[in-house]
Formats: sequence, C-alpha cells, structure tokens
Amino acid sequence: MAKKVLENIFFPSDVRQLQPSELPQLAKELRDFIIDIVATKEGHLGASLGVVELTIALHYIFDTPNDLLVWDVGHQAYGHKILTGRRENFHTNRQRNGISGFPKRNESVYDSFGVGHSSTSISAALGMAIASQLKGEKKHHIAVIGDASIASGMAFEALNHAGDTNANLLVILNDNAIGIDPSVGALKDYLTRIKSVSSDIEQQNIFEALNFDYSGPIDGHNLVELLSELNRLKEIEGPKFLHVITTKGKGLRQAEENQVQYHAPGKFDKVSGNVLPKENNKFTKFQDVFGRTIVELAKNNDKIVGITPAMLTGSSLKFMLEEFPSRTFDVGIAEQHAVTLAAGMATQGLIPFCNIYSTFMQRAYDQVIHDVAIQNLPVVFCLDRAGLVGEDGATHHGIFDLAYLRCIPNMVVFAPRNEIELRNILYTSQLGLDHPIVIRYPRGRGKIENWQIPFKRIEIGKGSVLKEGNKVAVLSLGTIADNVSEAIKNIDNTVDVAHYDMRFIKPLDENLLHTIFQKFGKIITIEDGTIKGGFGSAVLEFASENNYQMKIKVLGIPDEFIHHGTVDELQQICGIDINSIYKTIEELIK
Amino acid sequence: MAKKVLENIFFPSDVRQLQPSELPQLAKELRDFIIDIVATKEGHLGASLGVVELTIALHYIFDTPNDLLVWDVGHQAYGHKILTGRRENFHTNRQRNGISGFPKRNESVYDSFGVGHSSTSISAALGMAIASQLKGEKKHHIAVIGDASIASGMAFEALNHAGDTNANLLVILNDNAIGIDPSVGALKDYLTRIKSVSSDIEQQNIFEALNFDYSGPIDGHNLVELLSELNRLKEIEGPKFLHVITTKGKGLRQAEENQVQYHAPGKFDKVSGNVLPKENNKFTKFQDVFGRTIVELAKNNDKIVGITPAMLTGSSLKFMLEEFPSRTFDVGIAEQHAVTLAAGMATQGLIPFCNIYSTFMQRAYDQVIHDVAIQNLPVVFCLDRAGLVGEDGATHHGIFDLAYLRCIPNMVVFAPRNEIELRNILYTSQLGLDHPIVIRYPRGRGKIENWQIPFKRIEIGKGSVLKEGNKVAVLSLGTIADNVSEAIKNIDNTVDVAHYDMRFIKPLDENLLHTIFQKFGKIITIEDGTIKGGFGSAVLEFASENNYQMKIKVLGIPDEFIHHGTVDELQQICGIDINSIYKTIEELIK
Repeated sequence: MAKKVLENIFFPSDVRQLQPSELPQLAKELRDFIIDIVATKEGHLGASLGVVELTIALHYIFDTPNDLLVWDVGHQAYGHKILTGRRENFHTNRQRNGISGFPKRNESVYDSFGVGHSSTSISAALGMAIASQLKGEKKHHIAVIGDASIASGMAFEALNHAGDTNANLLVILNDNAIGIDPSVGALKDYLTRIKSVSSDIEQQNIFEALNFDYSGPIDGHNLVELLSELNRLKEIEGPKFLHVITTKGKGLRQAEENQVQYHAPGKFDKVSGNVLPKENNKFTKFQDVFGRTIVELAKNNDKIVGITPAMLTGSSLKFMLEEFPSRTFDVGIAEQHAVTLAAGMATQGLIPFCNIYSTFMQRAYDQVIHDVAIQNLPVVFCLDRAGLVGEDGATHHGIFDLAYLRCIPNMVVFAPRNEIELRNILYTSQLGLDHPIVIRYPRGRGKIENWQIPFKRIEIGKGSVLKEGNKVAVLSLGTIADNVSEAIKNIDNTVDVAHYDMRFIKPLDENLLHTIFQKFGKIITIEDGTIKGGFGSAVLEFASENNYQMKIKVLGIPDEFIHHGTVDELQQICGIDINSIYKTIEELIK
Repeated sequence: MAKKVLENIFFPSDVRQLQPSELPQLAKELRDFIIDIVATKEGHLGASLGVVELTIALHYIFDTPNDLLVWDVGHQAYGHKILTGRRENFHTNRQRNGISGFPKRNESVYDSFGVGHSSTSISAALGMAIASQLKGEKKHHIAVIGDASIASGMAFEALNHAGDTNANLLVILNDNAIGIDPSVGALKDYLTRIKSVSSDIEQQNIFEALNFDYSGPIDGHNLVELLSELNRLKEIEGPKFLHVITTKGKGLRQAEENQVQYHAPGKFDKVSGNVLPKENNKFTKFQDVFGRTIVELAKNNDKIVGITPAMLTGSSLKFMLEEFPSRTFDVGIAEQHAVTLAAGMATQGLIPFCNIYSTFMQRAYDQVIHDVAIQNLPVVFCLDRAGLVGEDGATHHGIFDLAYLRCIPNMVVFAPRNEIELRNILYTSQLGLDHPIVIRYPRGRGKIENWQIPFKRIEIGKGSVLKEGNKVAVLSLGTIADNVSEAIKNIDNTVDVAHYDMRFIKPLDENLLHTIFQKFGKIITIEDGTIKGGFGSAVLEFASENNYQMKIKVLGIPDEFIHHGTVDELQQICGIDINSIYKTIEELIK
C-alpha cells in the first residue's frame, strides 16, 4: 500500500512541501476521501471528482490564500475544502453547524468569495485583481468556471470588461461539457470545435477576440501538464484564459458514465459505486407532479411550451423534453433570456411554462417586470424550490419571492398547498389567463398518494377554508399549511382555531379576508417566505386599507440569512415548525 | 424644392409603394421631421437620426407588421413610429396621454415588443421566431440592437441560444460605437477591429463562432447597400447577423460631433442645431450632488472607487472619471457584473460606490442578495432616478426598489430628503460601514442652493422630526417630504400635524416610531415607491409586531403601472402630490 499523503495535509502549505511526483498519489487519496464521505453523507460528487488534479495544481503553484482563488458555483470545491483546513470536518458537510456545501468567506480565509449561484467568479476575481492593482499588491487572482456557467450572460459581461483591463486575472475554463444537465448552446458547440480543430486553423478564438491570452485546451487530469501550464501563466501579465478539459465524476466509473445522476447521487456504495436504493416513498416529488402534469396538458394543448434555464432534471421538465422535444427548451444558465424568450413566445399566442428555481428567479427580476408584467403577457412561471431548501443553505433558499413578486402590478402569485392544487393550477394556467402567473412550490414530496385525479379549474384570487373555528384564525400560504394542520391537532380545544389556505398572495381573496376579519379578533399569518414584505405584510396592508384594527401575528422567515440544515431544523429556527406554530396559537388563544 | 414624400406616408405599406430612388428623399424628410419636432418637444434625438435609412429599408423590404420587428431599448424608434401610423401624433411624444417615447405593444401593432431597458430584443425576437416555427407560419423576425446593448450579458445569452436553433431570426447590429456614453469593453474593441480588418484575415468571428450567418459591416446610411443586403438575407434560413455601421446623430452636424449631449439634448434650434440655453436654475441636480461629492470624498479616501454600468453621464460619475480615471469604472450595460465586481473589490478593503439607476438595479437583484448581502460586504449602492421619473414612463420609474430591497437581510436603505442629506450619507458611507447600503434619490434638482457645507456623519437607522404636531403624524421617506411640507402649510390648523422624515426604510428607527405611535392615534406614511411591500408596509409590520392598533394610512404608488407624463401629473395620479396629501391630512384630522 502506498504511503498516506493526505493525512499529513492540513493546509496548502503542506501540499507545497510535496514533490511533484507525490501529487498523483495525493490526487488518488483525495478522490478516495471525497468518495468515502459523500457515499454516506451525500452531497455534490461529480464536479469535485472532476477537478481533483486541478485543485491540487492550483494550490501547489499559487500562494493561497494570499493569491485569491474563486470557485464558480462551488459544487466542485470539496477537494479545495479538504486541502484547506477542513479535512477533519468534511464529514459535517451540509449539516447544520457543519461546514457549508459551498465556499463561504466566514468559513475559511481560503474561501475568497462565497458562491452557490453560477457565473459570478470572473466578476468577483476581476474586482479583487483591480483592487490589488490599485493597492499596488502583487497577487494572483484566479477564477475557475465551468463551461455551463461561462455561457451565462453575467460571465460574458465580466470577460468583456476584464479583456479591456490589464488586471492580473487568470480565468480557468473547466470544460467537461456538462453543468447539472449536459451543456447547451452555440458556445458549447464552439468549445467542442476548438477542441477538435488544430489551433492554426482558427486565427483568433472568442476568448482571444475578447483580449485574453488564451491557452489550451489541456488535459485537466494530467498533473504534469497542469503544473507546467500554470507555472507559465503565472508569469504572464494581464488577463489570461486557460482551457482545461476534465471529466465530471473522474475516477468513479458510474459517475463518469452517468454524470447527471452522479452530480448529487445521494447515498451510494463506495466500493461498487452503485447508488443505494432510495427509501421507498409512496409520495411524489412536487417536481414530478409538475413534470408529469405538464406532459398531460401539453398533449391536449399545443400552445404549451416548456422553458428552463438549465434545470431540466431538477425541475422534471425533462419529462416534457422526452415527449415533446420541439416544444421544450433548456436554454442553459440564462435566466434573463429564458424569461424574455417566454415573453416573446407569449406575444405570438403560445403559453410558455417557464420553470426556474425561486432563488434563481432573482436573476431575471427585471425581465419579469419589464418584459412580462408591464406588457401583461400570460407567461406561466413555475417557481420550483420555493421556501427553505435545507442543505444547500443561504444561497439557495427561495424565500424572497413573495416579497419581490407581489409588488409587481398585473402578477398573479399562487402557492399550492398540495399536489392536487399544483396540478389544478397548472391546468388552470393553460386555459387562457389574462395575466402572468407565478406558481411557487417547494422542493421535495407532498403527502397525497393519489394526486392524479381529474383536473379542476381554480378560480383566480380565491382562498379556501380548511377548518372552521372560533377564537383564532390561522391564514397560511402554500405547503406550510401541513405544519399548521398538525399543530392544530395538538391544541387543547381545537374548536378554538380556524385555518384558511389563502392560496393567492396576489390577488388576495378580499371577500374571504373580510369574512375572517369580521369574525376573528386574533389572526396569525404563516408563510415560508420573508416576514418583511411577504404574505403577512400583504394581510397587514389589507387590514390597514380596510380599517381593521386587531391583533395580527406574522410568522415566516425572520430578517436574517438562514444557513444550511434540514428543512425541519431551519423551520425551528424560523419558528414555523409544528411545535412553534402550536405554541403561537396557544398563546394567542389565551 | 423636392416633392413631399413623407406627408403621404401613413403606414409602411405606403413606403413600399415608393420607388427605391425615392427613398433617399424620404430619408431626408423623415430626418427633418424628427429634428423639427424633437427641437421643441424634446426627447431622444441622436439614436433615431442614426437609423433613418435602416428604418426605411426594414419597412421597405419586410412585410411589417406581419414580419416582426423588435427595436432594442427603443431610443432609436422615432422614425419607426412616424412611418407606422403615428406621424400626426408624434408631437405628443412622451407627454401624458400622448405616445410613448418607446415602442409599446398597446400603442401600435407595429410595436411587436415593448422596450425601454436594453438588450431584450434578441430574446424576444427569438421567442417570436420559435413560435412561428411551431405554428408553421412563415414570417421574418428582426431584432435591431446597438453595440452598447449587445455587450450586455442578456444579449449574449440570447445569441448563444439562437445560434443553437434554426429559427428564422435576423439580428442587426447597429454599430455606432456609442450607447448614451461611448461604448466600452473588449467586444467594442473587437468590433472596431472587424471593421478595419479585411474579412479573410479572420477565419471566423465571434458571431460566426456562435453559428450565425454573419454579413457586413455595411454602411447603414447607404440605402442601396441596405436594401440589397436585406433582400439577400431575407432568403437565407436560420439565424443571421447583419453588422451595420451608422453615425449617431447623422444629419445634424452638432449631434454627430457631440453625440453624448445630443442623445437627448433638450430643446435646440432646429436651423442652427445649437442647444438652447437651459433655464437658469440655481439648484443642483441630485446627480451632480452625487458626482461632486464623490470627487471630494475620493480625494481624501483612496479606498473609494466608482463603478457604473453605462450611466457615466446620467449619474454624473463622469466627474470622478475626470479626476480619478484609474479608480472609476464604466463597465458598460452590465449591471450584474457591476454589482459582483463591486463585491469583489469590497472583499479587498476597497469602498465601491456603485451607481445604478433604480430601475436598472432590477437587473442585478440576485447579485445584490447573493454576492453582497449574504456576505455582508460594505458596497455603497447609489440608486439614481428612484421614484417616478416622468416622461420615460413605466419602464423607467424606480418604484419597486423599496419593496425588493427591504426584504434582504443585512441591507441598509436610506433615502435622502435633500442635497445635504445625500451629501452626508455619501460621506458616512465611506467612513467604514458594517453593512451594504443603498442610497436612493430621484432624478432632478433639489431645493437647497448652498448644499456644499461641511460634512456631518449620519447615524444609521436614525430618523428625524421635521415638525412637531398634535393630531396626525405624517411619516415620509425621501424627497417626497417636500410635498408634505407644502401640504402642511395649507392645513387650517398646522399645529395639528407632525411631520417626520424616517430617512431609513431599513433599519427603521424603532425608537422614533415608538415615540410616534405612543403619541398619535392617526398616522400617514408616504413614499414614492409601491404601496405593496414598501415603506408604509414596513411601518405596518412595526405596528403589528409591537401591538399598536391604530389608523395608518399608506400613500404611495398604487398597484398598477404608471405611464409617462410629468412627475407632477404622475404624482397626482398616485395621490402623492401636494394637494392630494393636503386632502388626506385634512380628512384624517377630522
């Protein structure tokens, strides 16, 4: 058995003590270490396996943390974390009070920039490089970005600016031809052509055209080549671009062969590499409710098209792609484009279902206002992973959407309480709405086994009574209704509590609210969005406009960033878990 | 005198009746018509003068409105409006109840897509082209986009997608090397090189690399060349790219020579071309208060850097560029990049002042949350043109910012009441804040002549009493305080009314609010942002959290899109003009 290298590595300075000849062994051990832990603790596997050699080479050649290294997105940073002081904590990855699944500035000085969303690394590293220039400090600034992320507009904006500076910036394109799903777009085809064509045929490639000193493509698993090229680039002034070809999942056969599944495979057998059978679950993911339903609807309505910016698998829009490839569009990591593309389609009478995770919709906020809402185009936004998402943490919670969407005129915003409501609002949305609509639903499974029942149209702006009661009215929005129902079961005198599912944060069901406000002196609102500006706030506005003066208790996400943990744990922190809701109701009853 | 052509043109079908030999005369008359009206009615001049020939050629060759023509931004669409049924109404341009300064779907069937913000045209036209394909309709789809707009990330996202389709899309790059300020970035240099280099030197340019059939560059003022090339392109399948070189301001000497000033020159002499002297105004624009002050501060604090995404002149950051060129960054139309660049700089101890118009900040919403706020980096956002902007209309009002920013943890959000407050908060922001801060201020002038008084630090989260009173408390945010003060002067018994400037929407001055809520039973809040989720809503949340139950009347922008007109007119529509405020106060006193 070869000697153990990794166990003596605590920081990159230890890596730099090794001989180049020892680095392949370190790579092997680092890869095994990642597989070993992720096999049982879960997390993002494929991306980190793909950059093991690159990670080692970067810390070997550059003087981190003095030199500044920015990982785009951060799925690929496990190796980096393990080599930078977090080997012994790595088993706490993505757990509450454990380390974050993404680089995070307050976790380590080696994490020069916090990430989670894609395509920020070039901008951030350029900002650092310009700062060093102004401060007269000689440092290196490196952004490592994947081929899916570099196709996003923001990355292009950064390249366009960087190429116009003489900043000491090295952009490394980690080209594995896949993001979470296979990369798409003309740039991807172009990158493929660069790889296959001898360099003298093309006089100037895109990156050279943008004033970068381009080199590559090189084999990102060949440490000798990596070290030599990084050493050479270190001496070159101005913006530089290194094109590195890697294999996502490198070193684990199944992960290489099935890159989409092994992006984040869940638990797997670290020896065989096989994904362990998931716990049998009779309930369906909301994602699949969306995916199955849109296929059903698209069969009968040929105006329906599906659009997603690189969330084909995550959103289950892949089901539609399989059945209707010509009507399903994965536009890559391009939220802005996705929304305005949908608007353009809607002007011609199509009914675009645009599926974007709630947190990524923040990337297309202007397009929602400017291209969809002002023109009142009936685009259907399916906001997946709304609310607290759990282990992905602060960068990924979809908690701002209610606040940032309900201030936009013309918008309809609906949160289904369960699978059937989701199914029916999808049905309703393609019957011909007068407005754009946002349907926001969480990650994970519902609680209804037989949700595939006949469609029923939902009346826009109509809430519903879940439970009658006498003293306190609880108004909930979306799936958090389940917690409320459970909490009410524990109340001493359940007849004290009424429960309403408001369903629409916009338009509010004002008739129902009048009924409620005329009957109850004490009201609780609850949502899995920010308290500031959210659903509770909308109810307060209604009360103020209508001169109701009574006790209204607003529950939701408090005004702080919520980090990673299980959804249950995070709900407890926010006071929207079953027990906290129970206590709040009991207090109000008294 | 040549025969009058334009007076017989009502629709593009009339243009298409002309002989090609008559088109230069039409171009001359169209140019004169634009100059004639804009000289007295004001508006965007240079862009429209630059595309007179292109506009005529497009409507001559293509079958508008059946073929779909999308103008990016829309500054250049005056000629288009005049040729498409709006010649006789063109004098009402940008006036309330008159035509919009931008293409607008509900104004004309020839305006296939509403614009105002940049870089949306390729996405929209691609959406239309895909729709036609799916519907089996043979149409042409044309996006006309400037060289400043195409450098924005969103346009790249659309090109990247379009190049991967076989949609019938023609992208026309209107390359005049200037947006509002001269274009910047590596792509601009590249476009300059394309122009100067014979086409056989470069095997494949960027647009060809993205799978477009590239042609050009051609002279955009040569009708013969334009007609011939558009005719040729009409027959080509798939995504096509035509590079057209134009001169902004073409046909008016001063507008060609001083393209920045003549972008929107205000009133000018249509014969001499000279801009008429502005009415003497002893007051300073808030923009200049910002621009002058940041120069003053930058002299004493070398950590300060200035960043703007293409609003150098509009924001008056140009003053800083003049004095500190190495510390001032116009990054082009790249809001996303601008914000994350600022975040990167802030990690290295710089103090970036990032100047973005409120409405364009919507483009960088995710970056504000994800790159700045989560990491709590002390970036200083100067949100220019907040509130109602007047003649630019619905696409440009900065009315959502209070709602979409105050739900973000860690943010400080301040609205100066006047020039001195703006000056002092800029001063305060560079003393070393613990948080990012947003400073939002309106377009136009203040009311204080001598604002350049010694700096005074502002305490974060502290509001102020403007006027004591007994019965009703008015809480205002920002410069709308002036309307309140004027309204109070007209109240019968002014001692009835107290007036507070809350200054910070976040953090709220809770001490001051407690004082107010304990004293007054009737409260009015007023802001020039959306009622839904804005400042009033924040006050309602405070009241609810603290169990205050009283009458709170919330004034602000109602839940509808507000179109164009003077700020006064629009304030009346919203009920936040002096008279409406007066009435609201009087009612509440009773």
